[in-house]
Amino acid sequence: MKVHILGCYSATPRALTNPTAQVLEIRNHLFLIDCGEGTQVQLRKNKIKFSRINHVFISHLHGDHFFGLPGLVSTFRLLGRKKELHIYGPKGIKEAITLMLKLGDSWTTYPLLFHELGSKGSELIFEDDKVTVETIPLKHRIYTNGFLFKEKPALRKLNIAAARKYGVDKSQFNLIKQGSDGTDTEGKTIFNELLTHDPEPPKSYAFCSDTVYDEGLVNFLRKVHVLYHESTFLTSDEHLALKTKHSTAAQAAKIAKLADVGTLILGHYSMRYGSLELFKKEAEAHFDRVALADDGKVFDFSGNLSQ
Amino acid sequence: MKVHILGCYSATPRALTNPTAQVLEIRNHLFLIDCGEGTQVQLRKNKIKFSRINHVFISHLHGDHFFGLPGLVSTFRLLGRKKELHIYGPKGIKEAITLMLKLGDSWTTYPLLFHELGSKGSELIFEDDKVTVETIPLKHRIYTNGFLFKEKPALRKLNIAAARKYGVDKSQFNLIKQGSDGTDTEGKTIFNELLTHDPEPPKSYAFCSDTVYDEGLVNFLRKVHVLYHESTFLTSDEHLALKTKHSTAAQAAKIAKLADVGTLILGHYSMRYGSLELFKKEAEAHFDRVALADDGKVFDFSGNLSQ
Repeated sequence: MKVHILGCYSATPRALTNPTAQVLEIRNHLFLIDCGEGTQVQLRKNKIKFSRINHVFISHLHGDHFFGLPGLVSTFRLLGRKKELHIYGPKGIKEAITLMLKLGDSWTTYPLLFHELGSKGSELIFEDDKVTVETIPLKHRIYTNGFLFKEKPALRKLNIAAARKYGVDKSQFNLIKQGSDGTDTEGKTIFNELLTHDPEPPKSYAFCSDTVYDEGLVNFLRKVHVLYHESTFLTSDEHLALKTKHSTAAQAAKIAKLADVGTLILGHYSMRYGSLELFKKEAEAHFDRVALADDGKVFDFSGNLSQ
Repeated sequence: MKVHILGCYSATPRALTNPTAQVLEIRNHLFLIDCGEGTQVQLRKNKIKFSRINHVFISHLHGDHFFGLPGLVSTFRLLGRKKELHIYGPKGIKEAITLMLKLGDSWTTYPLLFHELGSKGSELIFEDDKVTVETIPLKHRIYTNGFLFKEKPALRKLNIAAARKYGVDKSQFNLIKQGSDGTDTEGKTIFNELLTHDPEPPKSYAFCSDTVYDEGLVNFLRKVHVLYHESTFLTSDEHLALKTKHSTAAQAAKIAKLADVGTLILGHYSMRYGSLELFKKEAEAHFDRVALADDGKVFDFSGNLSQ
C-alpha cells in the first residue's frame, strides 16, 4: 500500500503548491482521491500511469478538490482511453462534468460512469475480490465524504518447497492458497499450515478532508493503519477552524489517538504559516506517529505495519 | 503594448507546457485572453497582478482554452476581490461557471458579469476612451471567436517649453492635447503643431486561435501591428490541420502576408514535433517577421512599430 501525495495545500493552486489530490496504490488498484486544478500535471510529474486509474473519489465540490476533473476526463479522451472510468462524488458532479464536455462537443471515447453520493450515513461504494471502499460522512460547509479503503484478507502464501516435499500436486495449489489442507499421493491429509506462510495482514487507509473536529469520526476510523486527516490550521487559529469547518493539527491528532490509528498523515495546510514543522509539533503533543504530507511525497506502507 | 504568453501549447497541460492563456497589456488594461487549466498558477509565476485583470476574453469552450476559468473566478473570491469582473465568451459559459460555483456554494463576493457571444459576424464587444475590442469570427470545430484589440488615437504630447515660450496658459493644456490651437496672452492664435509632438500611433493586436486556414480572416486583420495566429501543425501534417480545423505554420504566415501585418506570433503548437524552430522556418518561407510564442515569454511592442 502506497500513498502518492499530488497536492495537499488548501484553497488555491500556487507556483509551488497544489490543491488536494492523491493516489492510493492498494492491491494493484490506483485510486485517485480528489482532483484539484492541475492534478493531471501532478500525475505526469510524479510519473503515475494515467491509464491505470479507473476509479476517482471526490470528497466534495469545493474547487480545490475537483476543478481538475474536467481536464483529466478530457485528457483521458485525447490519450485514446477505451476503459471505463468510474467517478464517485456528491450529487451534481455528473451535471457539472457533462456540461463542460457538452460545451466543447468533446464527449468521451470511453464509458464515463458516475456514482453520485447523497447519503448522510456511511455506504459501501466499491467492492471487488481485493478491496472495499466505504464513505465516511464528514462535517464541512457543504456535503462531504471521506473514504475508507480496506484490503480484504490476502490468499495464503504457498510454500512450494514444502508442497514438493510432502508430494502435494500443483492442481491443489489454488485451494491451498484459499486455506484448504492438501493431500499427498497416498491420500494422506497435509495440514495447510505445513504448506503455506501467513500473508501480510490486510491494511486500511482513511482519507478525511475537509472536516471540522468531529469525535463521531472515531467509530469509522478505529485502528485503521493510516489516517490522512486534514489540519488546515494551527491551534492559535482554532476559532477559524471552527468557523470554516476545518481542523487544527492538534485536533487531527486527537482523533488519531481516540481511534488508535497506526499512522497519522497531516495535510490540507493553510498557506499562512511559515513552516510545516509547526503542524507536526502541535500534533505530536497528542499523538506519537505523525507524518507530514507534502506535494510529490510518497508514503510506502508495504510490509508489516505496527497494527 | 505588451503580450505575456502564459501558455501556448495545444490540447493538454503537461509538466513543462501550458494550454492557451495570455495577457495583453494595452493602455493600462490587462486583458486576459483564454484561460486553460493552470492559468492562475501561470499568472503567479509570471508575477502578473491578479487584481488588475478586469476583463477575460474566451475564444471557445474547448477545455484547453477555458478549464482554468472556474478556478480563477474562485481564487478572485478568496483574494477578497470587490471589483467587477467581465467575462466575454460563447453562449453556455455563464451556465458552466455558475454551476461550478453553485455546487461549491461559493458565490463570488464581487460582481461577475458575463457577456455571452453568439454572433456569426464581427461585433464590437468592448469600448472605452482608450481601446476597442471586436470579435473575429473563426472557423473551428465549435463556435469560436478571435479578438481584435485596437488602441484609440492617443492625446497629442504637450511641449511645455514651447507653451511657456509662446505664453500659453496651462488652463488651455487639456484642449491643446486634444488637438486645439492655443492663444497667447494677447489673444494671438498659436497653432497646435507649435505646442505639441505627435503621440505614438495607435497599435492593434489580433488573437486568432483556434482556426482552420481561412483567407476570409484577412479582411479583419489588414495591417494589424501584431497577429497571434495558431500554428498547431507543420506542413507535413496539413491534412490533420484540415481535419481538426487547425492551421499549419505556413498557413499562418500566408494569412500574415495577405493581411500585411507587422509581426506574426506563432503558437498553439502540437507536442508531436521536436523543436519550435521548425514552425518558424516553415513560416519564414512565406513571411519575414515571425516570432515564436513560448510559455513565460513577454513581447514588448512599446515604442514605434514599423506599421
